[in-house]
Amino acid sequence: MSWIETSYMGRRGVARGAQGQTHEITEAVQGEYRYMYGPYVAPVLRIRPGDVVAAHTHDAFGGAIKTEADLPSKVLNMPFVNPQNGPVAVEGAEKGDVLAVRILSIVPRGPQPAGTTALIPEFGGLVATPTTAMLNAPLAEKVKKMEVTTAGVKFSDRITLPYEPFVGTLGVSPEIEAVSSLQPDYWGGNMDLPDVAPGAIVYFPVQHKDAYLYMGDCHGRQGDGELCGVAVEIPAVLTVQVDLIKGWSIPGVRLETEDFIMSVGSARPMEDAARMAYRDLIRWLVSDYGFDEAEAYFLCTQAGRVRVGNMVDPKYTLGASMLKSYIR
Amino acid sequence: MSWIETSYMGRRGVARGAQGQTHEITEAVQGEYRYMYGPYVAPVLRIRPGDVVAAHTHDAFGGAIKTEADLPSKVLNMPFVNPQNGPVAVEGAEKGDVLAVRILSIVPRGPQPAGTTALIPEFGGLVATPTTAMLNAPLAEKVKKMEVTTAGVKFSDRITLPYEPFVGTLGVSPEIEAVSSLQPDYWGGNMDLPDVAPGAIVYFPVQHKDAYLYMGDCHGRQGDGELCGVAVEIPAVLTVQVDLIKGWSIPGVRLETEDFIMSVGSARPMEDAARMAYRDLIRWLVSDYGFDEAEAYFLCTQAGRVRVGNMVDPKYTLGASMLKSYIR
Amino acid sequence: MSWIETSYMGRRGVARGAQGQTHEITEAVQGEYRYMYGPYVAPVLRIRPGDVVAAHTHDAFGGAIKTEADLPSKVLNMPFVNPQNGPVAVEGAEKGDVLAVRILSIVPRGPQPAGTTALIPEFGGLVATPTTAMLNAPLAEKVKKMEVTTAGVKFSDRITLPYEPFVGTLGVSPEIEAVSSLQPDYWGGNMDLPDVAPGAIVYFPVQHKDAYLYMGDCHGRQGDGELCGVAVEIPAVLTVQVDLIKGWSIPGVRLETEDFIMSVGSARPMEDAARMAYRDLIRWLVSDYGFDEAEAYFLCTQAGRVRVGNMVDPKYTLGASMLKSYIR
Amino acid sequence: MSWIETSYMGRRGVARGAQGQTHEITEAVQGEYRYMYGPYVAPVLRIRPGDVVAAHTHDAFGGAIKTEADLPSKVLNMPFVNPQNGPVAVEGAEKGDVLAVRILSIVPRGPQPAGTTALIPEFGGLVATPTTAMLNAPLAEKVKKMEVTTAGVKFSDRITLPYEPFVGTLGVSPEIEAVSSLQPDYWGGNMDLPDVAPGAIVYFPVQHKDAYLYMGDCHGRQGDGELCGVAVEIPAVLTVQVDLIKGWSIPGVRLETEDFIMSVGSARPMEDAARMAYRDLIRWLVSDYGFDEAEAYFLCTQAGRVRVGNMVDPKYTLGASMLKSYIR
Repeated sequence: MSWIETSYMGRRGVARGAQGQTHEITEAVQGEYRYMYGPYVAPVLRIRPGDVVAAHTHDAFGGAIKTEADLPSKVLNMPFVNPQNGPVAVEGAEKGDVLAVRILSIVPRGPQPAGTTALIPEFGGLVATPTTAMLNAPLAEKVKKMEVTTAGVKFSDRITLPYEPFVGTLGVSPEIEAVSSLQPDYWGGNMDLPDVAPGAIVYFPVQHKDAYLYMGDCHGRQGDGELCGVAVEIPAVLTVQVDLIKGWSIPGVRLETEDFIMSVGSARPMEDAARMAYRDLIRWLVSDYGFDEAEAYFLCTQAGRVRVGNMVDPKYTLGASMLKSYIR
Repeated sequence: MSWIETSYMGRRGVARGAQGQTHEITEAVQGEYRYMYGPYVAPVLRIRPGDVVAAHTHDAFGGAIKTEADLPSKVLNMPFVNPQNGPVAVEGAEKGDVLAVRILSIVPRGPQPAGTTALIPEFGGLVATPTTAMLNAPLAEKVKKMEVTTAGVKFSDRITLPYEPFVGTLGVSPEIEAVSSLQPDYWGGNMDLPDVAPGAIVYFPVQHKDAYLYMGDCHGRQGDGELCGVAVEIPAVLTVQVDLIKGWSIPGVRLETEDFIMSVGSARPMEDAARMAYRDLIRWLVSDYGFDEAEAYFLCTQAGRVRVGNMVDPKYTLGASMLKSYIR
Repeated sequence: MSWIETSYMGRRGVARGAQGQTHEITEAVQGEYRYMYGPYVAPVLRIRPGDVVAAHTHDAFGGAIKTEADLPSKVLNMPFVNPQNGPVAVEGAEKGDVLAVRILSIVPRGPQPAGTTALIPEFGGLVATPTTAMLNAPLAEKVKKMEVTTAGVKFSDRITLPYEPFVGTLGVSPEIEAVSSLQPDYWGGNMDLPDVAPGAIVYFPVQHKDAYLYMGDCHGRQGDGELCGVAVEIPAVLTVQVDLIKGWSIPGVRLETEDFIMSVGSARPMEDAARMAYRDLIRWLVSDYGFDEAEAYFLCTQAGRVRVGNMVDPKYTLGASMLKSYIR
Repeated sequence: MSWIETSYMGRRGVARGAQGQTHEITEAVQGEYRYMYGPYVAPVLRIRPGDVVAAHTHDAFGGAIKTEADLPSKVLNMPFVNPQNGPVAVEGAEKGDVLAVRILSIVPRGPQPAGTTALIPEFGGLVATPTTAMLNAPLAEKVKKMEVTTAGVKFSDRITLPYEPFVGTLGVSPEIEAVSSLQPDYWGGNMDLPDVAPGAIVYFPVQHKDAYLYMGDCHGRQGDGELCGVAVEIPAVLTVQVDLIKGWSIPGVRLETEDFIMSVGSARPMEDAARMAYRDLIRWLVSDYGFDEAEAYFLCTQAGRVRVGNMVDPKYTLGASMLKSYIR
């Protein structure tokens, strides 16, 4: 028996994990890519719970950085960055439900070198920004292109890093806002959290009728914090299975793998993201795993794990997790 | 000669401070009030630079809290709070321009007690919130109604506070986002900054064609920080004069009175809001007042002033100011 | 009747505001100046409640920056900066008491130009520091000397700023720690708060037998936040009157003038300093002024005032105050 | 060949990893345990580089919490918590050197249940504290005792967690300060970082002659962030080998295992701790591993790892690490 059958999706999803129809969102199908998570555009696709979607995603720069000579300040046109596929309307989804998105696979596409990272002026975790505003001069702008295949990320002649892909930006539409795809929040978005990877099911609190799933911004890999602000950005074919859970109310993004459950928080300062994540994890332990609050608080103290997703986006994203082996 | 003639609006505005036509946005004219700053709705009014607009604003609760028995958790329907008048389209405004909004007057309207404040669960500067998430139990919910006239705010039998009204939420539309009217940002919005008051001209960086001015959320008065999250909220007739400045590029909100110039920053943590505000003030001193950067930095160190607007909204807002008498 | 008689010092001090003996701590009396707030050195002086002390303070650089050519990185020897007079032992003071320090006067001393400010590499509110660590290159180091008299601070040929002196660093010894005089905390220290000025009485929670009062780091004036980290640093004759209050337990620094009461918080991030200050102000209103907690929270929301002392020291310092006219 | 020979300690230590004399600091030898990291007490022991020290540590409560009925608020006497063994004087150590401390073993001692955790009022990562000051009522105080052996931590009848011990508080004396053992900083102290464990060598920047090594506060295990503020606190026999490295200047704590190198940052807000750690890691990669700054920044972005040590102490502690396999 696959762990999927015992997952929240498998046990409580409308489709109970059974795969439905498969859809492909090619570049042609998508047409105009989206730069916001919001309800003000028509869905590119309508699906049913259980359906599988393969989306042809662009990289975060919309493919504009083809060589190391294509400087971001020259080729990017803010705020038109981080293009997204979608929205995908999910039949039956209503505010208060949970959308389950199982990441099936992420395969790089397009010409090599497929991977891009960059030092962008006034952007990143170790430089002054428009928000952490300082008088110091910015670093020199710089682009690094990398060959990325499922065999590895060729960081340099000397270093090849494992291909550990994940989805940087994924989520559902807010109820009435239309928010930049650069921002993470309780509905998902630009979380840049490496656990949103093949092998995981991500749960989003539906805010708007039909959920309106957006997805994009795949990364060939990333260190904790996405330090300079730009991971190994790749165009990819991202394949997900979508299910819908009725009667499960969650305040923000949750995630599940075969080995652990995780609550996600996005906020500034960083300790607030950690607080959000851990408080939700405690409440989850209380509601579903038979702990009282103090015991759950103690267990997180002694066995909780924290992953720093990003420390560069408008809100920082952290995940707090607990091994399933401890709470069975 | 009025100081208005020497203001940025008076010297550089398309209308040079001359008053044009007067418009009134009554409740009937407004029809549906707005809960977002964004470009996705039709303007309620089109005006020309120099025109005056008198808007009949609702209080932040849309008038739903009529007595101290009307608890927020009962009568409010999130996210439909902080209703705004507008958008007002300003002819000729384009991305890169500056919209000048001179606050002429704020007069309470509606039945007494017109003023409302409240302790709302998990909201405020001295309580755990969904963001600064904690396990402590929330405070008891509580509403306080106050009689508010231009003569004063009757806080209690013992205390009458001066009527020092200002506009809590004011700004222009983002370029492609539609952002909750609860949020402040570089385009304005829910800054809750007491200097946005009669006697001030506020400058906003236009992001979208016709600017799309929104306004609402008048306060009879407020302490620094808007500590519990709810000022003396009043419905009001808010009268502003609008002008348009071409060829002035500003990165965020600026403000001017007869006595000082101010740059505004909105961010978390609070020091980032202070950094944003002060950096912009320094750049303003350099560009317009003949200082080099080091001298401007020194002058702000020795004579800068900081006003804490709010420490409760999704971003905290601070203003950094310099007396004009020092920089003439 | 002077307001002093109605102050906490006047009403509850052991000396009830009556002036006792006058002491002078000249450079010769002080001998070795101190770089820590702690109990591990012998007092330079023993006094009784009511006594007046005139201390000959050094500037924060110990006078090492005599000209604009004396760069901090050359002439300073960390951690031997911010020299303090003291400790002064106060007879009868015990842990749990309050030490009242009334600032009587601050007069510049020494040769002109007596005032110094500077851009010090990796120090200040708008630059990367060892703590807010970044990869940006530091600003150029720079010193500015200013003539400072009680008539004004000659900032430049063009600008003379008012002489508004205050004490940058003032407080009592921690119980068992010896903490750098660069740091502010609940016992006082390097608060850099402009309200610690002639006309104010500052209250410190005694931690150690005899209190061990330290003082130094006078400023000719300063803007809110002490932005570049260096105010108008001056050597001065600082005259204070000291009293002792038994039976008053306070968790941190409080302050009183004729017009207002203030609670002080020192913490990072800045919102935590604001929370500390405002929470203590609310508790003070509850314990001494007849408010219940919700009313005090409401009053601070509508009429509280925040002063940003510093945004540059190891902890940021803010003061939250309430006008006495509202709470009589 | 052991990896120790290729470690910084093995290659550059005065003793080159060779073990010298073994010393034992029993409770009798220690006599008075210490509550501060500072130079104002006499060393309990003098050793030479290469020597091994076995210290009989107390738990963070000095053993005062013997049963679940011993509430912290009753049995603790602030600031006398987190007792430390030491200081140990290391011959030849001078300011500017590096002290290498290899953790050899941590064995629980004393009667069972040896492990203690607790909910202490106004302390912890998910509650209001004196610093993140709020008006919410504190949680109920609570103690949990656990049997701890090298076989495991008996969290409850249902859950036994792996024994993964580490040293919570370890470091050298500041130069002139004496700082509470509750605080972490660039010299070490209460970092509560689970990587400070058997198998690691920790490097501290010496500030004072003879280094003055302090150690204590062993934990049977801990989750990331030490969420409630109290790990599995145990009394233990902690055995370390100490070496001294001349000619290596480091700005803060660094750490090495067979698999990775790590830089440690302690600061608030949490992002500043992450910035400190990552900036130092980048500088380390540049100075010792042949990267230029941009390449090191890129590598940390794609392959850096962050461990959240504590989010509860006066400063939060994070470690940023890089696998040695990537940088050989």
